[in-house]
Amino acid sequence: MDSGIRGQPEERVSEVDQVSHLAVDIGGSLIKLVYSSSNETSGVEKGETASDDILEVSNGSDNYPIHYGRLHFAKFETSKINDCLEFISSKQLCRSGSWHHVTSDNHRIAIKATGGGAYKFADLFKEKLGVSLDKVDEMDCLVAGANFLLKAVCQEAFTYMDGREEYVQIDHNDLYPYLLVNIGSGVSMIKVDGDGKFERVSGTSVGGGTFWGLGRLLTKCKSFDELLELSYSGNNRVIDMLVGDIYGGTDYTKIGLSSTTIASSFGKAISENKELQDYRPEDVSRSLLRMISNNIGQIAYLNALRFGLKRIFFGGFFIRGHPYTMDTISVAVQFWSKGEAEAMFLRHEGFLGALGAFVSHESHSLGTS
Amino acid sequence: MDSGIRGQPEERVSEVDQVSHLAVDIGGSLIKLVYSSSNETSGVEKGETASDDILEVSNGSDNYPIHYGRLHFAKFETSKINDCLEFISSKQLCRSGSWHHVTSDNHRIAIKATGGGAYKFADLFKEKLGVSLDKVDEMDCLVAGANFLLKAVCQEAFTYMDGREEYVQIDHNDLYPYLLVNIGSGVSMIKVDGDGKFERVSGTSVGGGTFWGLGRLLTKCKSFDELLELSYSGNNRVIDMLVGDIYGGTDYTKIGLSSTTIASSFGKAISENKELQDYRPEDVSRSLLRMISNNIGQIAYLNALRFGLKRIFFGGFFIRGHPYTMDTISVAVQFWSKGEAEAMFLRHEGFLGALGAFVSHESHSLGTS
Repeated sequence: MDSGIRGQPEERVSEVDQVSHLAVDIGGSLIKLVYSSSNETSGVEKGETASDDILEVSNGSDNYPIHYGRLHFAKFETSKINDCLEFISSKQLCRSGSWHHVTSDNHRIAIKATGGGAYKFADLFKEKLGVSLDKVDEMDCLVAGANFLLKAVCQEAFTYMDGREEYVQIDHNDLYPYLLVNIGSGVSMIKVDGDGKFERVSGTSVGGGTFWGLGRLLTKCKSFDELLELSYSGNNRVIDMLVGDIYGGTDYTKIGLSSTTIASSFGKAISENKELQDYRPEDVSRSLLRMISNNIGQIAYLNALRFGLKRIFFGGFFIRGHPYTMDTISVAVQFWSKGEAEAMFLRHEGFLGALGAFVSHESHSLGTS
Repeated sequence: MDSGIRGQPEERVSEVDQVSHLAVDIGGSLIKLVYSSSNETSGVEKGETASDDILEVSNGSDNYPIHYGRLHFAKFETSKINDCLEFISSKQLCRSGSWHHVTSDNHRIAIKATGGGAYKFADLFKEKLGVSLDKVDEMDCLVAGANFLLKAVCQEAFTYMDGREEYVQIDHNDLYPYLLVNIGSGVSMIKVDGDGKFERVSGTSVGGGTFWGLGRLLTKCKSFDELLELSYSGNNRVIDMLVGDIYGGTDYTKIGLSSTTIASSFGKAISENKELQDYRPEDVSRSLLRMISNNIGQIAYLNALRFGLKRIFFGGFFIRGHPYTMDTISVAVQFWSKGEAEAMFLRHEGFLGALGAFVSHESHSLGTS
């Protein structure tokens, strides 16, 4: 388990008894946790393998007039769900007698849970922690999480182009409609028209699970982040077939394709002269990242166009604030829309679902300060 | 070099002096040749490594009132262009004194050529064969080739679903507009409004070069066709992460995703318990083919939707009449369009560009019978 939010110190709640709220989002690859505490200060506990990040949400917007105290974020690989259960247990994130949702069924403790794993692992949570998972629909949560962030958190949304992040002030009265693209293992594309008003209009199976799955098979990388890190020093032109490779170095100007446009992702790998081991993992990672990011950007744009949506927010744990990913998505949206549509990113990109489950709690006015 | 058209015997022109016309389409992966002969019968020459297929186009439609004699089709890998040059030379397909286009520049012999290689290899053709390549725009040729086939050839277009090919009679007066999706190394999507009236509206770099490039890196396959053949006995569910894998075997009914829907292509490969060698090449090939075919079908549908096009014709050498490829594309178009749009395939799918270059010749009334 590691830190999920960029540019934030690794911190954790040191006073477990001040934890007051927990929600989980269990996806195909990752489990995301959001929990709140009313603790004013939180100490960095060194030597721990677990860490999380903190967001203070103390302002009251029109729609979220609640004081949440401090929100903490953590993530685990779904394949290591026992680490997650141990984390929840050791921090006593689901103790009886706390704020947790108590169902009518003999005062069972229940925690809000979303994602497919809320179904798949319900029995495991019951067995190991003695808690029920109170299931909340995945799309409902993604939308609720995004709306929450866009309304309640300053400097949440930003554009990214040519290496520059630029925060965008969102006018709450001019937020809808927008396209929400959540890139987890797979990708969901949701047209959002208001609080709780949305439709999942599209998606693609070529997402974060594809990057990491294909990346693992093609390289010796041991983690998603290692694979992503490799891409920084990679050169996709070693493996991708460019327009110039086909046209002998010249552009195909008539249809607006420059010689450096990728004609075929991984198209140079058809060469009989090279095997997998002859390619640098850095270049493989870069080509893969480019292929997947560009494809998502293109499909997102086509769906935005279909519904006349000017703004596309990209979230999900695939992105991880990675410059090349964001740049590729931004360029794809700009290229295909001829500048009409704009890609935006979210600082808490990976926790939309978990945040949505968190705010879905009936009583969330739990802070003490 | 091998046969490019399914279900046709491998034949070649035995009387080279009756060859009367040649056009080439040099793509990133393959060189496609179309040439005509007026030979009434053509013998099968056994023991040859080269082969080609034959199409008789002797009917005169309103738009193509010309007798072409027999059309022959052949293909070579672009990396083995010398084999192609030798084939042209040995069959005397570009002899002086024949019908070939003679330019004003001192009666140079020129042959119609399209694709990026018409630029890249122009000097090579000049040097080795003494012929100039008379370059014709790639998109012009794709459209001209498709229109030619749809108008002049009976039983050219067909739908494919659940293992059944069904030929479609095309009404010449109700052909336009349509979307032409040509899947070569990369993919071009062209809105066709009439003869010579078209616009390249989209495309994707995830095409045939991606299938073969990634497939080569992931398996020990020695050819595109070997990789394609493997997919017949593969099971994509071994590597793809399905909705049921995330949701514990259940559907995600609320948004219409069944448990067998692919949530993440190659998503199961994120498991730490398996390395590349633990997966069967058959399953890898199947997942790859499904991912790419489905993605193309989806992007094609979104573009057809954008322009209100009901018919989408898929061509290009990626398809090769492969049932699973066609089925995946058909299902993708049907699924995303909710049955509103229909995928159609072309029997001479791989030769659109070469045929377009062929018919672009100013004087193509060359048959003797």
